[in-house]
Amino acid sequence: MMKSIVSSKYLACLVGSIILNLLFIINIYVGGQWKLSWSSRAAIEAETVAAIYCSGHGRAYLDGLVVVGNKPVCDCNTCFTGPGCSQFIPHCTANADGGDPLFLEPFWMQHLASSALVVAGWHQMSYTYSGKSFFSEELAKVVRKVHASVGNAVTQNRFIIFGAGSTQVLSAAVFALSPENTSSPAKVVTSVPYYPVDKQQTQYFSSQKFKYEGDAYRWKNRSDCSITNMIEIVTSPNNPDGQLKKAIFHGPNVKTIYDHAYYWPHFTPIPAPSDEDVMVFTLSKLTGHAGTRLGGAVIKDETVFNRMMIHMQMNSMGVSKDAQLRAFKLLNVVLEEGTGIFDFAYQTLKSRWERLVQTVSLSNRFSLQENNPQYCTFYNKVRQLSPAYAWLKCEREEDKDCYAVLEAANIIGRQGNLFGVEDGYVRLSLVRTQDDFDILIERLHKLITEEDGDKTM
Amino acid sequence: MMKSIVSSKYLACLVGSIILNLLFIINIYVGGQWKLSWSSRAAIEAETVAAIYCSGHGRAYLDGLVVVGNKPVCDCNTCFTGPGCSQFIPHCTANADGGDPLFLEPFWMQHLASSALVVAGWHQMSYTYSGKSFFSEELAKVVRKVHASVGNAVTQNRFIIFGAGSTQVLSAAVFALSPENTSSPAKVVTSVPYYPVDKQQTQYFSSQKFKYEGDAYRWKNRSDCSITNMIEIVTSPNNPDGQLKKAIFHGPNVKTIYDHAYYWPHFTPIPAPSDEDVMVFTLSKLTGHAGTRLGGAVIKDETVFNRMMIHMQMNSMGVSKDAQLRAFKLLNVVLEEGTGIFDFAYQTLKSRWERLVQTVSLSNRFSLQENNPQYCTFYNKVRQLSPAYAWLKCEREEDKDCYAVLEAANIIGRQGNLFGVEDGYVRLSLVRTQDDFDILIERLHKLITEEDGDKTM
Repeated sequence: MMKSIVSSKYLACLVGSIILNLLFIINIYVGGQWKLSWSSRAAIEAETVAAIYCSGHGRAYLDGLVVVGNKPVCDCNTCFTGPGCSQFIPHCTANADGGDPLFLEPFWMQHLASSALVVAGWHQMSYTYSGKSFFSEELAKVVRKVHASVGNAVTQNRFIIFGAGSTQVLSAAVFALSPENTSSPAKVVTSVPYYPVDKQQTQYFSSQKFKYEGDAYRWKNRSDCSITNMIEIVTSPNNPDGQLKKAIFHGPNVKTIYDHAYYWPHFTPIPAPSDEDVMVFTLSKLTGHAGTRLGGAVIKDETVFNRMMIHMQMNSMGVSKDAQLRAFKLLNVVLEEGTGIFDFAYQTLKSRWERLVQTVSLSNRFSLQENNPQYCTFYNKVRQLSPAYAWLKCEREEDKDCYAVLEAANIIGRQGNLFGVEDGYVRLSLVRTQDDFDILIERLHKLITEEDGDKTM
Repeated sequence: MMKSIVSSKYLACLVGSIILNLLFIINIYVGGQWKLSWSSRAAIEAETVAAIYCSGHGRAYLDGLVVVGNKPVCDCNTCFTGPGCSQFIPHCTANADGGDPLFLEPFWMQHLASSALVVAGWHQMSYTYSGKSFFSEELAKVVRKVHASVGNAVTQNRFIIFGAGSTQVLSAAVFALSPENTSSPAKVVTSVPYYPVDKQQTQYFSSQKFKYEGDAYRWKNRSDCSITNMIEIVTSPNNPDGQLKKAIFHGPNVKTIYDHAYYWPHFTPIPAPSDEDVMVFTLSKLTGHAGTRLGGAVIKDETVFNRMMIHMQMNSMGVSKDAQLRAFKLLNVVLEEGTGIFDFAYQTLKSRWERLVQTVSLSNRFSLQENNPQYCTFYNKVRQLSPAYAWLKCEREEDKDCYAVLEAANIIGRQGNLFGVEDGYVRLSLVRTQDDFDILIERLHKLITEEDGDKTM
């Protein structure tokens, strides 16, 4: 009897153990798949680095700085330091300068599994896709789907080209729209306030083909415009002020490039799908992946498209296939998530804008850009701007150098004169990390509330 | 007794089963790690696509063309077709045109686990690394280590910059070496036979700053060279002929750019580490990842480095961080493997060169470039070229158009006149897939052996 009990116990344990083994086997053959083979080492490595704790004020990267040993250290947000980014730097400067779109980082941290990417060592080694083009057809398909789902651009029967960020794509468009054989270079113009890179880049590459000719308004009423070639770059929504801009020039000798980097529901109501000749977009301001350097253009005319292709070949022999693969992965997540990323981005920026408006409204010393509500076809309602940048104006006579006023209050913005206007303006970035924004508001609040008897509310 | 045997059997089974349980547990907690979490889905996806069978004549990519359903189809080598690339296209044209370095693909297929890469969705979203530079410091460290281990370039106390392939880096160097304020543009020259892109690119971007002025030899004895600014691009080893070239011009008004894309033991003996002012390299011809578009320059002078940085900013706001991460991963494998990749590449190209020499030597109709043995410090022995390209000459008077002679035999090379010489020459690529090379040899062999009574051996 005793033995019988012992052996039943053995049996029970054995059955239990066998069931456990079966569970393990099922676990390893996940969904009919073999256990991971060649990707395991890289996956463990990536997950280990990603798990490094940076106190919510930083993150560790696979290719992050290594100070000692093999492990990358945390890459901390501005104003945070220490090995785990846990120390706040009390009197640090609020960085509201560049347009680093880190406000979208939390979205990707919330979509870890779907947005991860595994690349084999032998992946896409060739210059081209299937010996044909520098550009991924599958990426172009996804891009068309994203535009269709948002309704911000017409892409049917249009050509699509990619480049290293909208920066390289804009330059390709300027080269492609310049006349091939001409005695006088095309005049490239932008209307104030304009995106500084357009001016700087056009001046840098200026040649017999084209020349930067400043503010578009300056040329508006001059009769010689009708006989010369003109290229107008229209940034819409505009950087710095978020306004939906329209071209100033029209006519047979005028070519227009629409920079639609910010034409997403994140930043602006979408009144209608844009259907311009050359429309430039960028991953940077859609998904937040500025570092991937992946921009694109939607083009009506085949000749322009072909000339832009030549530019991409001459300039960099195409565009990184790793960047194209990353964009392909991320845009597929954008599609899978429906309105997810747009809701996240819009809510984040709307709440930031409201906090900024509230802070600035405590005084008459500063004002912000106008915020005209418009009907948004994406959200089917009238909505306001939730702009990427605040276009801040110093209203007092003595605050002529608005940048200096903010600098003295420990805030770094971008000087108005870079955008072609007086220094009474400063651009403040609202797309950076939450830490950057919080510190900006804190510094701004302090500046405004510490005015000596100037509170005019 | 019977029961005792039964229970000992149970016991043995139980112990066995428990051991198996433990093995599974160990297996799941690999090296103290938790089972993979967020990377699993992507890993399964990548391994599934990589496992698609393409008969050894193709491969399937994550972002490969999708014809029906969701699964990418095989991307077949030239001359192979069908869903599994199993059908040979009998009379297809041998492609010996571009320099797609697919000869290295098998190396990466043999190093699957170490070269795989897992990227989190939130990886490196910013334009910069830690708010500082567009370029990864960790990548620069690895680049220095690779050059040190090969002994092909001095990198201590030198600046390192990256760009979208050597194409963009070469252009950046030309812009950076041009005088800032001058009445006459710098003369950009290359000596025949030269790499066609240098000419095409310089002409495309020509401006007040610089102008392409053709073959360097044409200017050698002209007195006006001493007073004008000159930029000489020296491709060494040369593309097309693999020769180690030296600059023709020297002096205070001369700037030299060394394009060292092929200065690796794969292609050439390494007589000594190069120590030039501006040395351009590219991942494409080191690891074979042309599609990643990651080139770099090693620079002596800080001003030149700073001007190249400005170029990279103006042109594309830096270079894809995805490309930099991929390069970081791959170069770490290069280091881990000691002489592995160099041995693989050298043996592959040496054997291809020997087969080509053998084939061409069956007739006097064609000849190949000289192949001067030199001492190689990397292999510590005298060795011959194992060039990336054959520089084929048609020796007969009537074969003036050598490209047409080959084309008639179903072989596509690259026309001699693109390299600044007569059409008696054709460049044949030896770095493409093994299939491409095998078909080239077959077509060439047929052309040579089918000559009517012309066999002069």
